[in-house]
Amino acid sequence: MSVESTNDLSTITDEEIFNAHLGGKLTIGSKMPLSTKRDLSIAYTPGVAKVSQAIADDPAKHETHTWTGRLVAVVSDGTAVLGLGNIGPAASLPVMEGKAALFKQYADLNSIPLVLNTTDVDEIVETIVRLSPSFGAVNLEDISAPRCFEIERRLIEALDMPVMHDDQHGTAVVTLAALIGAARQTKRDISSLKVVVSGAGSAGVAVTNLLLSAGVADVIVLDSRGTINRQRDDLNEIKAELASRTNRDDVIGGLAEALEGADVVVGLSSSQFPEEAVAKMNDNAIIFALSNPTPEIMPDVAAKYAAVVATGRSDFPNQINNVLAFPGIFRGALDAGAKKITEAMKVAAAHAIADLVGDDLAADYIIPSAIDERVMPAVAAAVAAASAE
Amino acid sequence: MSVESTNDLSTITDEEIFNAHLGGKLTIGSKMPLSTKRDLSIAYTPGVAKVSQAIADDPAKHETHTWTGRLVAVVSDGTAVLGLGNIGPAASLPVMEGKAALFKQYADLNSIPLVLNTTDVDEIVETIVRLSPSFGAVNLEDISAPRCFEIERRLIEALDMPVMHDDQHGTAVVTLAALIGAARQTKRDISSLKVVVSGAGSAGVAVTNLLLSAGVADVIVLDSRGTINRQRDDLNEIKAELASRTNRDDVIGGLAEALEGADVVVGLSSSQFPEEAVAKMNDNAIIFALSNPTPEIMPDVAAKYAAVVATGRSDFPNQINNVLAFPGIFRGALDAGAKKITEAMKVAAAHAIADLVGDDLAADYIIPSAIDERVMPAVAAAVAAASAE
Repeated sequence: MSVESTNDLSTITDEEIFNAHLGGKLTIGSKMPLSTKRDLSIAYTPGVAKVSQAIADDPAKHETHTWTGRLVAVVSDGTAVLGLGNIGPAASLPVMEGKAALFKQYADLNSIPLVLNTTDVDEIVETIVRLSPSFGAVNLEDISAPRCFEIERRLIEALDMPVMHDDQHGTAVVTLAALIGAARQTKRDISSLKVVVSGAGSAGVAVTNLLLSAGVADVIVLDSRGTINRQRDDLNEIKAELASRTNRDDVIGGLAEALEGADVVVGLSSSQFPEEAVAKMNDNAIIFALSNPTPEIMPDVAAKYAAVVATGRSDFPNQINNVLAFPGIFRGALDAGAKKITEAMKVAAAHAIADLVGDDLAADYIIPSAIDERVMPAVAAAVAAASAE
Repeated sequence: MSVESTNDLSTITDEEIFNAHLGGKLTIGSKMPLSTKRDLSIAYTPGVAKVSQAIADDPAKHETHTWTGRLVAVVSDGTAVLGLGNIGPAASLPVMEGKAALFKQYADLNSIPLVLNTTDVDEIVETIVRLSPSFGAVNLEDISAPRCFEIERRLIEALDMPVMHDDQHGTAVVTLAALIGAARQTKRDISSLKVVVSGAGSAGVAVTNLLLSAGVADVIVLDSRGTINRQRDDLNEIKAELASRTNRDDVIGGLAEALEGADVVVGLSSSQFPEEAVAKMNDNAIIFALSNPTPEIMPDVAAKYAAVVATGRSDFPNQINNVLAFPGIFRGALDAGAKKITEAMKVAAAHAIADLVGDDLAADYIIPSAIDERVMPAVAAAVAAASAE
């Protein structure tokens, strides 16, 4: 397979990046003209009073006659930002602005970044609940594990709108889509694959759960102490629950032991994959080394042992990029008026992404490009259809 | 003076108003292109990580390299919306969207509406404080008295950014500007005027305070029970404080008693002004009947007893409209990097507005039009200059 760069980023200078961020990346616009007194009388007083009174009389008009019906709040506390870690809410904001810009570009949804200077689970949940008449959906972003699990669960319970932690489920959907493509390329069914997930943070847990939902039968998850198994007494609630549903052969040990006879490895932590461990995988191995900016194993090395290699980087083939999933998932959920994002909607999104590859399937093309314009509409349609089931 | 309609609103239908509000009035845009992988690498990963790290290393870059340096949060709990009262946060949102659109149109500032489904003072304050890394200034809007006073005071204390309750101070600034114009038209100094303020809600209290700051010596305030005076034992903390600084002759009674020998009356409640009470005012009386949509006295009736009449309506001359003040006040404060909006900044804003009338001063032109494009830059410059003093 080819591991040549498909996109030369070395031409981007720091100066260009910082200049592009001066004053931030987002701008608010008015959909209505506001230059005459007549305009003002429609958009503001006295005309607006009729719309406000109509919403007071019929709460359903809140969704149709304000911008909330297509507005996603991108919410973070800045505790797990990219590879930078806990840099705080102010420093996380450029990432959240970028995410909001992507929602507009890819799904024609409006989005506002809301960053919180608290890391307390109760406070984050109550803050977003108090603000909830301000938006129509919540994209949680860059919140560290295990708090992210509880925050997401409690917001899903409390709010009557789509809520999704993208670092978990966006990553999981695109990883599943890529695995479907890689299995097709190597002429196997995903249910037959033995999968190792390296990393038990937000993405590792969500990827594992979605693979199980999609029919993968044998998954082993590793955290920093080795395989998660039923003998361990150091597991938190989330990992203990994972132990009950994974590692069916009770493999004890580290990455090398887990990869013995494995078909797939998914890297979702910064732990490197030693060449000698990867060498123990089965023929036709599938290696997803998703850490950014440094993959767990470089693609040219991985290719010596694998039939299919993917990374999280735009400058290698087969980029596993959340932008393939989240715009269409939120767009489909909002289009359909869905109040939850279900496992069925996520699995449908993954199949929709994978199916776009079609006859162009190849070892270096198991998943569409992040800028493929067919993706968002296909995902949105699949998600909306699955929400109605 | 002329009281002819300057702007016929009767041509605006409900259908036009509701159609204009379908899907809301605001839209988010990206200032950067996002169509190529290279664009994504600058605006999002990996490029954005450098900007986030730079902010983590130097918090001052939060203001320069995110959109917060020019972003105003328009915050409401929906308890005092226009003339509609406590209609709740969802129904208040069209008004807040309109306000955000006005910030863009008049001051080229970005603005996001945040409406809260709590009316508890502690909860509102802590919610906004937790979100404060998300924006650069707070415009409080349509929050009922007396909670609005405490919420504003506590947010000013807690936040290192401009905070202003527009229903109080926007109204006060424009009222002072109009009073300066009316005094000039009638060849008097505002310090010599005996002023009656009808209404002791958010606007009444703020107007009174700003008139006193600007040099008006004699103000009588009325609430629903009559004049606020030092004999009353039913006054809350805010009104008791007003009693100590107003009504120097200790006038007891209602509107008729207060207007005996008064030069100016400012209507800021829905209480009507009976013709026989207004008749007791001095020659060259100034009547500001600011209730919307129904003024305390119609301009054609008021004109029988007054040299100058103003209302809050766009279809009569001399409209006292907050849009003359808030865009320039926030723009000037943010331009200057001011951390507070002071009394001196508000008085400077009022003088800047009044001075634009210039030689065109007339009984029906004491204040510029709401859509006069000279206003915002003049106010912003005056506010920025006053912030540096």
